[in-house]
Amino acid sequence: MKCLSCKEEYGDRNAGTCRECYEEAGETEEELKRQIVELDSKVNFLSLIAISPKFVPTANPRCFSDVVLVASGPPESDNPHCNSPSIPAHRAVLTSRSPVFRAMLENEMEESLTGTIMIRDVSYDTLRAFVNYMYTAEACLGENMACDLLVLSEKYQVKHLKNYCEKYLMSTLNWENSIPRYAFAHQHGAKSLLDSSLSLILDNMDKLGKREEYVKLVERDPRMVVEIYEAYLSKQVNTGLSKDRFVKA
Amino acid sequence: MKCLSCKEEYGDRNAGTCRECYEEAGETEEELKRQIVELDSKVNFLSLIAISPKFVPTANPRCFSDVVLVASGPPESDNPHCNSPSIPAHRAVLTSRSPVFRAMLENEMEESLTGTIMIRDVSYDTLRAFVNYMYTAEACLGENMACDLLVLSEKYQVKHLKNYCEKYLMSTLNWENSIPRYAFAHQHGAKSLLDSSLSLILDNMDKLGKREEYVKLVERDPRMVVEIYEAYLSKQVNTGLSKDRFVKA
Repeated sequence: MKCLSCKEEYGDRNAGTCRECYEEAGETEEELKRQIVELDSKVNFLSLIAISPKFVPTANPRCFSDVVLVASGPPESDNPHCNSPSIPAHRAVLTSRSPVFRAMLENEMEESLTGTIMIRDVSYDTLRAFVNYMYTAEACLGENMACDLLVLSEKYQVKHLKNYCEKYLMSTLNWENSIPRYAFAHQHGAKSLLDSSLSLILDNMDKLGKREEYVKLVERDPRMVVEIYEAYLSKQVNTGLSKDRFVKA
Repeated sequence: MKCLSCKEEYGDRNAGTCRECYEEAGETEEELKRQIVELDSKVNFLSLIAISPKFVPTANPRCFSDVVLVASGPPESDNPHCNSPSIPAHRAVLTSRSPVFRAMLENEMEESLTGTIMIRDVSYDTLRAFVNYMYTAEACLGENMACDLLVLSEKYQVKHLKNYCEKYLMSTLNWENSIPRYAFAHQHGAKSLLDSSLSLILDNMDKLGKREEYVKLVERDPRMVVEIYEAYLSKQVNTGLSKDRFVKA
């Protein structure tokens, strides 16, 4: 008989669904697609792109900004006061997205009184992408930007952005970058990225010792390496294969 | 053979899809559901509920409001200055959602200088729901609220809310309310609601003349009634059934 979807002939062995279920599934798919269109339009409506730093990169009276953010160099740099341009923002938006900004701006802290928030150890581009995300829930990520934004979103507790960066880093995870990603995830409390990278490392234990990043990690933070071995041991005990596999290796 | 979905036996006649297409459809559904979860979380992130009138119904220094809206009675009422409580809002949000508020607040109009926007002919509850929608893209609708919000969203050109109300009014459309809905849609440029209600009326032309709302509409706005008859005639010509059906009626 003929498949209603691919139009190919099929026999008993390849039997999938009956016509009723096929039609029901089609309706479900339509309904899900309708929901997606509706949610997409909600996201567009709620996005504050017209007043985001992407659209209004410098202070403009028409955007009703009431606070600015400034990326300042690290304190140990030659000239920590050599700041990049200030990024206009809105207290209402920042406090809605970040409990850290809320505490800062709702109380009489220096930032609240001066209307200027200095953000250390961050580049202008990263800060602008960070603020922009709070208006639009969108960011253009590459490896470095994802790491920088994850650090910033952890510091200011913008969970949604942290998840977004973590997902990106998980989607680009491979054996080559698994050790630095594992260390990075460890340092910044990125649980899912930590699990994924650890699991990748555990699948390649026989090659681990030869890697340059491994040697560096033993030097820099041996406790992280201990945790890899502990996880390996625990995995072997759980799968009951400990002896066999040690012999093979 | 057995359907993989409902587990019932089916024969050639009820053949739906082959196993491969069944499995592919399952994957598509999973992917669509994943997208919905992601979009839902984006909507939650972008929603400004914590500073919306629902959450902060009266001015509060912690919500950084820089403008208030006031529902004022109609000009012909006994006391047009008897206003309800003012609703705090943010110029940045209002100008992002409505081109009318943008023109009002970006220029040196009275509202911009005083920081108070008077909204005539609207109740406090409707205005609060209207402002709340601009922060959250959500509203709790009943028939009256949907009509009131549609009128307001048309006036301030908040298209997303207008569509939302229109969809609600279409979902609750029936023969009993089709004539007033048709007149309402006509008056407020709600194209989809107009088409749906007109189509419902055209399907019940034999009962139209007996309805009280019809008699009232002829009195109040005969041109709207003419448009019903014109649409009826045009439908008959298009379906080529004009003569037959006139005879039957």
